[in-house]
Amino acid sequence: MQWYFVAALLTVLTSSQGILTTLSQSNGKYKYDYATVPFLAEAFKLAVSSLLLWRECKQSPSTRMTTDWKSMRLFPIPSIIYLIHNNVQFATLVYVDTSTYQIMGNLKIITTGILFRLFLKRKLSNLQWIAVGLLAIGTTTSQVKGCGEASCESLFSAPIQGYMLGILSACLSALAGVYTEFLMKKNNDSLYWQNLQLYTFGVIFNMARLVMDDFRGGFENGPWWQRLFNGYSLTTWLVVLNLGSTGLLVSWLMKYADNIIKVYSTSMAMLLTMVLSAYLFNFKPTLQLFLGILTCMMSVHMYFAPPNMLVDIPSTVKAAPGNLKEVTVEGRTDS
Amino acid sequence: MQWYFVAALLTVLTSSQGILTTLSQSNGKYKYDYATVPFLAEAFKLAVSSLLLWRECKQSPSTRMTTDWKSMRLFPIPSIIYLIHNNVQFATLVYVDTSTYQIMGNLKIITTGILFRLFLKRKLSNLQWIAVGLLAIGTTTSQVKGCGEASCESLFSAPIQGYMLGILSACLSALAGVYTEFLMKKNNDSLYWQNLQLYTFGVIFNMARLVMDDFRGGFENGPWWQRLFNGYSLTTWLVVLNLGSTGLLVSWLMKYADNIIKVYSTSMAMLLTMVLSAYLFNFKPTLQLFLGILTCMMSVHMYFAPPNMLVDIPSTVKAAPGNLKEVTVEGRTDS
Repeated sequence: MQWYFVAALLTVLTSSQGILTTLSQSNGKYKYDYATVPFLAEAFKLAVSSLLLWRECKQSPSTRMTTDWKSMRLFPIPSIIYLIHNNVQFATLVYVDTSTYQIMGNLKIITTGILFRLFLKRKLSNLQWIAVGLLAIGTTTSQVKGCGEASCESLFSAPIQGYMLGILSACLSALAGVYTEFLMKKNNDSLYWQNLQLYTFGVIFNMARLVMDDFRGGFENGPWWQRLFNGYSLTTWLVVLNLGSTGLLVSWLMKYADNIIKVYSTSMAMLLTMVLSAYLFNFKPTLQLFLGILTCMMSVHMYFAPPNMLVDIPSTVKAAPGNLKEVTVEGRTDS
Repeated sequence: MQWYFVAALLTVLTSSQGILTTLSQSNGKYKYDYATVPFLAEAFKLAVSSLLLWRECKQSPSTRMTTDWKSMRLFPIPSIIYLIHNNVQFATLVYVDTSTYQIMGNLKIITTGILFRLFLKRKLSNLQWIAVGLLAIGTTTSQVKGCGEASCESLFSAPIQGYMLGILSACLSALAGVYTEFLMKKNNDSLYWQNLQLYTFGVIFNMARLVMDDFRGGFENGPWWQRLFNGYSLTTWLVVLNLGSTGLLVSWLMKYADNIIKVYSTSMAMLLTMVLSAYLFNFKPTLQLFLGILTCMMSVHMYFAPPNMLVDIPSTVKAAPGNLKEVTVEGRTDS
């Protein structure tokens, strides 16, 4: 499978996630407990990965699985980072309004690039750094409040704590991604075995969250397993399936591609959602959405196009036929 | 003189032009006839160029001046294009409001790139095209109406004629620039001699405009030469001097640099004006201004940085010391 096919599929599914979630609401409210969705999605991913691992083991007995404790103990860490991230997110929203929060969310494109460089020691060219910066600018541009929209005064007038927490949130989100990539790539273990470990902890942490919610709510609606499917419609199930599938695609990208590709994929999804929302929910598309999309398109081209397509390779290189061949081969970015 | 020094000076002066013009108004109105300003600026440029040409001729008797009719008859053409452009501008504003007009003005960045390629046969790399596109996106982004601003409904709801005229206007503006560059570069004539011809026609055409205004107004306030300096303050004189100086700098750039550099220079000036206005006239700078500035900065870097700074030159080239030297030399963009 090619990475760009997976990335495109991730874009489409992530984009439908937002729309399905909106469609699963009735009168702008959830009739089901939203916290049950990620739990069921983790369970779905765990089931799919177990099945695929079982099939892989049957087909080739040499399937690589590292089972020592030193390796396995690394797998709950992404779940722990996400847990901290969720709480920071909650704290941030005490200080800033949702549109400022959304705007600050684009910072994670930049922090992912930085941690990708620092922790995974992956080098980007100067132009690729500019492209990553432009992606963040493009997504932010598309979210600029149009005139006529209410509650715009509050943008960037929040207390400093709000911004510090926003930056922390962007760092944690990037850290979780970069750490997962490290985990998936650190050895040649089967992807499904790695997924199995990752999602086992995912299920446990999400279950813990539901239990905590129960304790916080004083078991008013009974324990979580009794109300697990309460208010579920077909659309809710589609939300679960969709969330699970995007998770599996992200895992694949972390092992066979990288975090930057994931970031491009989800940023494109965000723009696609805005365009589709304009269609489906009758929003008027703004000039800034159009400008943001153009900027992101250019960013994609700059990041992924082979360098010799972007700049003129000096003629001395072209003159020597032996070198030319090497240049063309090295210029490709498919991996 | 280096082109980037001239370009930077042009940015500063063009930017002060907007601010000086605002300062020269009292209560948002001109106490003087604004049409007299470009006339006097042309006269100033003509005087300065004559003086410099005289000095040049004294210093080196070999100063090149083509004086045949076939060459001289080309010099009124920029003035004629500007005359048509002014009328198209006027017609456009019948159909679209000023903010849509301002937004459409950024199209001239793109049309300049296209005519630069088509008429002057100058090649840009793929990346430089992206950079030019980004410059247009960045300047447009900075002008997106913030929320809370009045009269935003009208944006992009004008009749189709308005947009066609806007595109025509962008083409004419680009044509005038590209044609002037062709004129200045077509032979090795002294810059001052070329200026002298250009500004003589500039003075004539601007004078014709003042006469026409007189006829339109039925000589109510007397002929134009009697009311030439009416209502002039020190600031008005500064506006004239400034406009004249920017004209001289543009001429220099047309001969020794090119239209794209001029477009970068004036786009940067537009952003600088917005930042300075925020300071001086107490506008609140918007998020979109910040995003637009970042986009334009990246565009500048992409356009002007040497290719080997932006992308990794393939290692085969680096390995051969002889080639490396050539690559470095070719990579430079100073001219």
